[in-house]
Amino acid sequence: MSFDRLIANIKEKQNPTVAGLDPKLDYIPDHIRSAAFEKYGKNLEGAAAALLEFNKGLIDALCDIVPAVKPQAAYYEMYGWYGVRTLAETIAYAKEKGMFVITDAKRNDIGTTMEAYAKAHIGCTDIEGEKVQAFSSDALTVNGYLGTDGIKPLLEICKNDDKGIFVLVKTSNPSSGELQDRVLDDGMTVYRTMGTMCEKWGSDAMGDFGYSAVGAVVGATYTEQLAELRKALPHTFFLVPGYGAQGGGAKDVAPAFDENGRGAVINSSRGIMCAWKKEGCDEKEYAQAARREALRMRDEIVSYIGTIK
Amino acid sequence: MSFDRLIANIKEKQNPTVAGLDPKLDYIPDHIRSAAFEKYGKNLEGAAAALLEFNKGLIDALCDIVPAVKPQAAYYEMYGWYGVRTLAETIAYAKEKGMFVITDAKRNDIGTTMEAYAKAHIGCTDIEGEKVQAFSSDALTVNGYLGTDGIKPLLEICKNDDKGIFVLVKTSNPSSGELQDRVLDDGMTVYRTMGTMCEKWGSDAMGDFGYSAVGAVVGATYTEQLAELRKALPHTFFLVPGYGAQGGGAKDVAPAFDENGRGAVINSSRGIMCAWKKEGCDEKEYAQAARREALRMRDEIVSYIGTIK
Repeated sequence: MSFDRLIANIKEKQNPTVAGLDPKLDYIPDHIRSAAFEKYGKNLEGAAAALLEFNKGLIDALCDIVPAVKPQAAYYEMYGWYGVRTLAETIAYAKEKGMFVITDAKRNDIGTTMEAYAKAHIGCTDIEGEKVQAFSSDALTVNGYLGTDGIKPLLEICKNDDKGIFVLVKTSNPSSGELQDRVLDDGMTVYRTMGTMCEKWGSDAMGDFGYSAVGAVVGATYTEQLAELRKALPHTFFLVPGYGAQGGGAKDVAPAFDENGRGAVINSSRGIMCAWKKEGCDEKEYAQAARREALRMRDEIVSYIGTIK
Repeated sequence: MSFDRLIANIKEKQNPTVAGLDPKLDYIPDHIRSAAFEKYGKNLEGAAAALLEFNKGLIDALCDIVPAVKPQAAYYEMYGWYGVRTLAETIAYAKEKGMFVITDAKRNDIGTTMEAYAKAHIGCTDIEGEKVQAFSSDALTVNGYLGTDGIKPLLEICKNDDKGIFVLVKTSNPSSGELQDRVLDDGMTVYRTMGTMCEKWGSDAMGDFGYSAVGAVVGATYTEQLAELRKALPHTFFLVPGYGAQGGGAKDVAPAFDENGRGAVINSSRGIMCAWKKEGCDEKEYAQAARREALRMRDEIVSYIGTIK
């Protein structure tokens, strides 16, 4: 099962983190932007070319120490189909470098349509009998508001093609509680109910480390809920956003892990991508600054959870 | 406000329907597929070219009688970035032909990321001071699981750029009730709670017909809930999927409309796209068959709701 590959990668690198690739133009050093705009024009194509160059530099600097990357689809779609091409190329490049790739796209739809998303993002597209990979990440984030129908098509691919999904359970944003914290008539919160569905959906797709192919997104900014959910959902691997720029610290994310130091991967996007700005170093060193921040984050988190067994 | 343009279009054509453009390769006549594969190869590029040709034929045949189209992002992403380019080109073509375009992408994320989706799909992307349109539909479907933060960035664009959003409230699929029908501790269902949030989100973006820029997705397959929500959400315009192939009939969707025959637009995708298969007509007549089905659907629905005032 997919998260076995991720967990093995985390163990090997002793690093339970994922680098978010959400490349706004503002984050990209001037020399990369200028070169791309000069070549392609100050347009979507030029912007997308700058994004790809920036991402490749980050991946090269991180691939031997960080187990996974998480490109966020929105920041690519913002640059039109050129941006989406950069997303596909970023995924392919990161996979080539041995990284586990999580496409953060929070897709959701009814069954027949979800089948199309599943094929697009973690499976294969059938073109008159030819199997072709459209984006083909290792894992995809999804939204479970539509229930089982919208999850099932993904499960088939998870089982057959060794892929995984992360379902939104308790998100990191300030207003996540408006619906997610509401209590149902059986006394359970909505987020806990969604978490319980993840356990059920994953029960048929269990991996060797005791975690299924159905993970959950749980924000670093809600540390009590993290602890509650880690206990309640023993087979659900967590993707934890909200560390760093959104306010979550290493101490806040520690409850996401089990007694073996497993069970979660912590994301940092802006912290890593913009490390060169925060450091104030030469912009040509942006990738090295990202690496330094990734190492600092790794050490900080591992200092709370110990060796990953 | 955006839905004013849609409603005006519906009134003018006396047709409260939208044609879903979810073009699977299977739905596309052989002569279109063969020509595209011959030109570009049996690959993502060839498939995407066939999709575009098919869509253009449908748009040409429908644009004077159907007020809107709704491309479903999943069916384009399935063909990689080539497919996403076809999505952009389809949107542009339909707008050129005077149709109101709803991108059905059910996007959702935290605030900063939702801003990127909002710019991508209904707004403009800023490239060093240049404003560029990435996809730029008239409206976007979204998922409200993350609460207000994930909706706010869209509202700004709705107000400033005359656009709209449809929030998933009660979806058409069989398992939609697993979460959406659950009852909260105040006695309200989850779908009703989401509907109430739509009224609140839209209160600041009201249009001339009494409907705000924040609409709701409510499935044709749940006719009681349609009636309940129409009553409870007087300022929320409905996008109603599930007519036709999913089992909803004209009688089932009638409760979605107000006493003026307004308040909703009914989607049909497969029914229209595959009309040529159902009719058994010459495949070269696929667009005319789609037009005949669109007219039949219009007449059937209008027979229940009367003149649209």
